[in-house]
Amino acid sequence: MKLYNSIGPNPRLVRMFLLEKELTVPFEEVDIMSGANRRAPYTDRNPIGQIPALELDDGTVISETVPICEYFEAVNPSPALIGSTPEEQAVSRMWTRRIELHITEPVTASFRYGPGAEMFKDRIRVIPEAAEGLAALGQDGLEKLDGLLGSGPFLAGDRFTLGDIVLYCFLDFAKGVGQSVNPEHKNVGAWFERVSARPSAEASLHPAAAAAGMRA
Amino acid sequence: MKLYNSIGPNPRLVRMFLLEKELTVPFEEVDIMSGANRRAPYTDRNPIGQIPALELDDGTVISETVPICEYFEAVNPSPALIGSTPEEQAVSRMWTRRIELHITEPVTASFRYGPGAEMFKDRIRVIPEAAEGLAALGQDGLEKLDGLLGSGPFLAGDRFTLGDIVLYCFLDFAKGVGQSVNPEHKNVGAWFERVSARPSAEASLHPAAAAAGMRA
Repeated sequence: MKLYNSIGPNPRLVRMFLLEKELTVPFEEVDIMSGANRRAPYTDRNPIGQIPALELDDGTVISETVPICEYFEAVNPSPALIGSTPEEQAVSRMWTRRIELHITEPVTASFRYGPGAEMFKDRIRVIPEAAEGLAALGQDGLEKLDGLLGSGPFLAGDRFTLGDIVLYCFLDFAKGVGQSVNPEHKNVGAWFERVSARPSAEASLHPAAAAAGMRA
Repeated sequence: MKLYNSIGPNPRLVRMFLLEKELTVPFEEVDIMSGANRRAPYTDRNPIGQIPALELDDGTVISETVPICEYFEAVNPSPALIGSTPEEQAVSRMWTRRIELHITEPVTASFRYGPGAEMFKDRIRVIPEAAEGLAALGQDGLEKLDGLLGSGPFLAGDRFTLGDIVLYCFLDFAKGVGQSVNPEHKNVGAWFERVSARPSAEASLHPAAAAAGMRA
């Protein structure tokens, strides 16, 4: 088994998930800055050309962050980061999908179509005229979330789950490109600080540390 | 347990999933044309204001189509429409996420921001200037899929899975609003006909039939 890895919030969230589960997986680095993910041999494995992807021992390649994390949970159920019962899993999956469709996807697209357009214009269809509206849509999602989160502590209440990891890694990426959490979103801000304080938050920034396992 | 149900491709895909699994669940209809889903009492259950949502016997409400289907699979594993092993589940989930992020979400957004703007403008943030680009993005996704599908027969190869249901219900919706499958996408066209021929495709259009179970 190996995980195709790179810089960026998508592989980071899988690394953070692995760290929280105390799992280690061999990494193979792919240089996305030079576009190695958008051409063979990588695209023979993941024709969508995105990182991360997980190659299983039988050669099956699983791309897409959330399904990769689901796979790790299925084969290593404890500690549960999705859920131990169908009901817990359903609540966690509901939150992850809300986070992706209402926040992280529009925020990411607005970056790719706006400030990141120069890097992305030769890789994907870039829609510059959509950048501003999608950024506003992501802020709508965060405002709604701020009301729903309350005192949390996490999206699924007392349980820290995959959706928290997804949202954290993308908001931390957005912060890195100059879009910090709106200070009016006090609950989201407090949640962000709570997640930042987890050892996996810092360690997931460093692939070598993630590959070795947080306690190694 | 009950499923909040309405017209539209999202509840339809859950109905189609239930029909394929030969499960029956009580429905409660919500009138989305009058916006009943965007105000209380519905929003007390699903604050995002979207249909469908599944209310469990303990009062827990699960919204979001894919997590609802995952719940039904977890409590009724056979016939498997996601997978019987972690590997099968991972492949199915990978396809479902690809379909959603690269095809059904941009296609749906382009409809809501374009031809459907009049209905949606008082319900969600509408980004009219993004409609054309998002429609083109969805077509990019379908073109890519056409190459990957080959002779199929289904997204996950020989297995008919949740991703097929998601894609079918949205392409059938798009067809209903004048956007049939591009005839150049021959593999997608053949796949669409294969899925159309399943009894669940027709039956899922009729909530009463779906509630009673396909064989009732």
